[in-house]
Amino acid sequence: MKAFASDNYSGVHPEVIDALLKANAEHMGSYGNDAITARTKKLFQKFFGEDAEVLFVYNGTGANVVSLSLLTKSFNSIICSDLAHINVDESTAPERLLGCKLVDVPSIHGKITPELVEQKIIRVGDQHHPQPKVISISQTTEYATVYSVDEIKALSVVAKKHNMYLHMDGSRISNAAVSLGKEFRAFTRDAGVDVLSFGGTKNGMMFGEAVVIFNAELAKDAYYLRKQGMQLHSKMRFISAQFECLLSNDLWKRNATHSNAMAKRLEQGLRGIPNVKITQSVDANGVFAILPHGTTEVLQQEMFFYVWNEQTNEVRLMCSFDTKEEEIDRFVAKLKELTR
Amino acid sequence: MKAFASDNYSGVHPEVIDALLKANAEHMGSYGNDAITARTKKLFQKFFGEDAEVLFVYNGTGANVVSLSLLTKSFNSIICSDLAHINVDESTAPERLLGCKLVDVPSIHGKITPELVEQKIIRVGDQHHPQPKVISISQTTEYATVYSVDEIKALSVVAKKHNMYLHMDGSRISNAAVSLGKEFRAFTRDAGVDVLSFGGTKNGMMFGEAVVIFNAELAKDAYYLRKQGMQLHSKMRFISAQFECLLSNDLWKRNATHSNAMAKRLEQGLRGIPNVKITQSVDANGVFAILPHGTTEVLQQEMFFYVWNEQTNEVRLMCSFDTKEEEIDRFVAKLKELTR
Amino acid sequence: MKAFASDNYSGVHPEVIDALLKANAEHMGSYGNDAITARTKKLFQKFFGEDAEVLFVYNGTGANVVSLSLLTKSFNSIICSDLAHINVDESTAPERLLGCKLVDVPSIHGKITPELVEQKIIRVGDQHHPQPKVISISQTTEYATVYSVDEIKALSVVAKKHNMYLHMDGSRISNAAVSLGKEFRAFTRDAGVDVLSFGGTKNGMMFGEAVVIFNAELAKDAYYLRKQGMQLHSKMRFISAQFECLLSNDLWKRNATHSNAMAKRLEQGLRGIPNVKITQSVDANGVFAILPHGTTEVLQQEMFFYVWNEQTNEVRLMCSFDTKEEEIDRFVAKLKELTR
Amino acid sequence: MKAFASDNYSGVHPEVIDALLKANAEHMGSYGNDAITARTKKLFQKFFGEDAEVLFVYNGTGANVVSLSLLTKSFNSIICSDLAHINVDESTAPERLLGCKLVDVPSIHGKITPELVEQKIIRVGDQHHPQPKVISISQTTEYATVYSVDEIKALSVVAKKHNMYLHMDGSRISNAAVSLGKEFRAFTRDAGVDVLSFGGTKNGMMFGEAVVIFNAELAKDAYYLRKQGMQLHSKMRFISAQFECLLSNDLWKRNATHSNAMAKRLEQGLRGIPNVKITQSVDANGVFAILPHGTTEVLQQEMFFYVWNEQTNEVRLMCSFDTKEEEIDRFVAKLKELTR
Repeated sequence: MKAFASDNYSGVHPEVIDALLKANAEHMGSYGNDAITARTKKLFQKFFGEDAEVLFVYNGTGANVVSLSLLTKSFNSIICSDLAHINVDESTAPERLLGCKLVDVPSIHGKITPELVEQKIIRVGDQHHPQPKVISISQTTEYATVYSVDEIKALSVVAKKHNMYLHMDGSRISNAAVSLGKEFRAFTRDAGVDVLSFGGTKNGMMFGEAVVIFNAELAKDAYYLRKQGMQLHSKMRFISAQFECLLSNDLWKRNATHSNAMAKRLEQGLRGIPNVKITQSVDANGVFAILPHGTTEVLQQEMFFYVWNEQTNEVRLMCSFDTKEEEIDRFVAKLKELTR
Repeated sequence: MKAFASDNYSGVHPEVIDALLKANAEHMGSYGNDAITARTKKLFQKFFGEDAEVLFVYNGTGANVVSLSLLTKSFNSIICSDLAHINVDESTAPERLLGCKLVDVPSIHGKITPELVEQKIIRVGDQHHPQPKVISISQTTEYATVYSVDEIKALSVVAKKHNMYLHMDGSRISNAAVSLGKEFRAFTRDAGVDVLSFGGTKNGMMFGEAVVIFNAELAKDAYYLRKQGMQLHSKMRFISAQFECLLSNDLWKRNATHSNAMAKRLEQGLRGIPNVKITQSVDANGVFAILPHGTTEVLQQEMFFYVWNEQTNEVRLMCSFDTKEEEIDRFVAKLKELTR
Repeated sequence: MKAFASDNYSGVHPEVIDALLKANAEHMGSYGNDAITARTKKLFQKFFGEDAEVLFVYNGTGANVVSLSLLTKSFNSIICSDLAHINVDESTAPERLLGCKLVDVPSIHGKITPELVEQKIIRVGDQHHPQPKVISISQTTEYATVYSVDEIKALSVVAKKHNMYLHMDGSRISNAAVSLGKEFRAFTRDAGVDVLSFGGTKNGMMFGEAVVIFNAELAKDAYYLRKQGMQLHSKMRFISAQFECLLSNDLWKRNATHSNAMAKRLEQGLRGIPNVKITQSVDANGVFAILPHGTTEVLQQEMFFYVWNEQTNEVRLMCSFDTKEEEIDRFVAKLKELTR
Repeated sequence: MKAFASDNYSGVHPEVIDALLKANAEHMGSYGNDAITARTKKLFQKFFGEDAEVLFVYNGTGANVVSLSLLTKSFNSIICSDLAHINVDESTAPERLLGCKLVDVPSIHGKITPELVEQKIIRVGDQHHPQPKVISISQTTEYATVYSVDEIKALSVVAKKHNMYLHMDGSRISNAAVSLGKEFRAFTRDAGVDVLSFGGTKNGMMFGEAVVIFNAELAKDAYYLRKQGMQLHSKMRFISAQFECLLSNDLWKRNATHSNAMAKRLEQGLRGIPNVKITQSVDANGVFAILPHGTTEVLQQEMFFYVWNEQTNEVRLMCSFDTKEEEIDRFVAKLKELTR
């Protein structure tokens, strides 16, 4: 079985498996007190700066909530896209854990803009109203589009102007880096991001995400908040080792380059088919398209995928590090056949 | 490096590794919607009853908090041992997530008794006071002692009498089962436990615990509360596959039998040494002992372990599935040498 | 100083003062255990049904949050108007106390409709998404408009269809009742409302609101949740006595009739002035109007009021039980003079 | 009916009533934006220092939780007496609102000591354990005893030494001040208290307490946290006016002097009766005593009071600003008669 359903339908990259096997040596200190974790933190710091703080957590919701807990007090609001994972796909974890209100902005191809955000920064200093404190963006977005460095900087300017922070949900950050052709740092820390959720699972890991903090003051409670947020792994080395592998020998880049290329190939295949409409810019590893009437169910048998919008029949086709060219081609051929 | 520090200093059992490798086949449904998870649930139900609900989570704190969230409202209190992991080792996760007060009872060799618990069931119906709703016990206890079936049943009687629930933190439940020589069910469901945190990590898994619910009514919100509690893994099959392995071919039992036996061997070795005092009944895989003055630091070089009580110099020596006889013997010999 | 700023700029009605003085007799039981509270509950039950449960609280936020805490679990969402007091004027009290997400619907003259609400009832049963559980409406609305009985019933049908509850924020419920010319019960309980926040402060009381519950099952945790929500007054009789006064001798109705009439008079006065645009239907005790350029600041000196929308220069003019005809007339005359 | 049940069984002092009547003039700004509130803050500052911040709230639980929310993060613990109101009489409001754990210390005559507190300041810097951040004491204590200035200073030294804060629950602070014969400031701010819950209701007010903050840095979020904590009154002047009255013309002192004297008179009367044992030092307005067998129910008919400890038959007899000498004498005479 292979699918375009999500990059978390895929398994674990063989090199990551090897790293896990290697980490499974004798006893090691628990809760991050081990040599692999120390090495992996240093590796992150090579990418993000020597003074970046890095904490490993279990999953994306955990990474986002721990990140946001560093940036907020309970009377704050967090401005994000209406499609943001934190807004629609994390149950009410942010509200319950943070106490904050999520204020959503209608997104444009998954992105939010300074203008839209500014409209929500209201009633500052008014005790009756949630106080805006964080702008949170997803990179890549939920529409698999990618913010440019300038777009991020512009949002950062808004944040700083209003004494707010900029958070990035980077569950697919490697795909964004490859898409932009930039170092991670260029579109995160150097573009004004304060805290980053760095994704691992969707790029070939078994489990594990990272919270990367670019400001020592913000980091000081992070260990307590991770533990309290139930995101502290006892056998930590098994998250660290995966990240060490991902960030070594460019595995993160090879995986993301591949999945992005597969999405491109899929896009190109689909563009040639009448009545298929590509709805979003294919910047990274996902293709959003409106399929011809009556083809969805048949195609889902071939390669399962999710309908994104029932009304418009827009579907989401996610590629993964292990998506194969022939799978793309077979899928395109099948759709061609169906629409002939 | 080998240690008696904790059973989470150990790595992953080779059979579990094999299961992980096997699970790393092609794509599978995410968030538990996969064949391995379905099979593993059935396996749990073989042990706990066909109508038991099983949810996999990341870690012990997650298992406990999700379990307790099924049993409580925010104005409730949870009665537990003063040493309970939920009381002293999970930051304030229970208070923050549940809103509840933990009411602690002075434990006797790690256990709480009906008499001690009854003293804390006060002011029922009084709106000003936290309303007692759960008795939570650890099996094995934090002192590595084991509740008998009768002791658990007696606590269950108290719970039922007061319209309360009984929760078991079973992060080392396999060691308890081996110690008692009983089926899991005999000292959990059949003894009156309502919800169980079933441990995997400390018995040879890489990550993962389970919440086992013996009451359909209590289970109905569990999926939402797990997600909201940030304990839902996307590539779920990698937790399920480990549990499938653990519960197949008696791996859970072989591992626990071994670690319990190692603790027994260690106890016997230590009993022969003057001025060593075994402080707790060695029921499972841990030995608590007061060491002769001046020996601790030297021994920690040999096999690292934690001092449990600085004042009395009581230490905790935990054995694991991979503790070796010769490690025990060397440790005992070293201590003998030091005390000669 | 007199103002159109808010009906909470007014003081306390003389009859309410008398009731407070009368209640200030000798000692009485605290926390609601007194004769006045017992009598006042019975009085509420005369209006709402013998089996209605009534709890007095301090303020509107308290009434709303306690009400909603009876209806929700932490993974739920609450659908309300984008202008709802709970959504924009209660800091993040609902999120922090309930854990829930507020999902807002663009309101039409302050009201939400079944169609708009239905669009937000999505992903039911999907563990990743907040689960819709309550529709909350304000009666009167934040635009001082009033839902008809049929409009409320229609929302109740939606709620029941989706296994949800209907909550009413009735901080100005008396004004609504007078506007509709109906008994309270007709547009609350009998129209399908499950829990009601019944307002007192804005209708001439010094402090105090009530939570009225139309379903015994929903009421069972109410006392605990009020106390935990820090809304339990020790000298309760001083809230009860005010409500007893308000609900006796039609004081609620006399006050609301007066303030509604004053708003009507104000509306009529304003309608005669060129370039003044009444923006909302004047159903109750508030008038929303766009004032001619340059008149706002001068008028605010005469009778202070708030600008509701800076962009459009829409202002809010609230009348109170103690607003006087001559104040209205003077205000209108002043504006006439300014626009001549 | 008159009672020794609690000082909240009493009504409102006539001078406070007068102040309420006077405050009930024309319209005033809401939510504290009025002249009476401004004046009353200044009055508080005369007692506590010009830079003290003062916020009025509804009740004692509100005052305590808002106070503690200024001092804590969700992973903190608060050390208090086992009898502390926050620990046993405020449902789980502190846990639910703050997320923190309350760590209780066995009290000695209602007080906690530096030695007892120090024993609970453990595992600082350990991410697994709640981090101690506040010592909270009640003045007067729940046993109506009073901390000396030196006792408070000694606890403050412990707090500062461990980078913690000192909070005082002063719901009966006036009784303490009279008992000590000191200015408020001497045993609060000048003794090292950081934030104070200043009680009004139990000393003759109708409703209202104050949060007094001695540190500008701690005050900066206070307005948001009060609102979010549902403790912001719209018609604020009616709390302020009561406090203005209480703090003017020594009403606070006259009331507390009287109620303390009544307790003293009661103590003296009881000491002459065989088999009556006074159990706590009568420092303020409460007497704790063990009554002879069989007398409790009869006496409760005369003047209702609560049994504090069912096992020992210890009862609590609270005097109030309106307790009369003849009531004391009649009660004592009745008990004498019963024991004859």
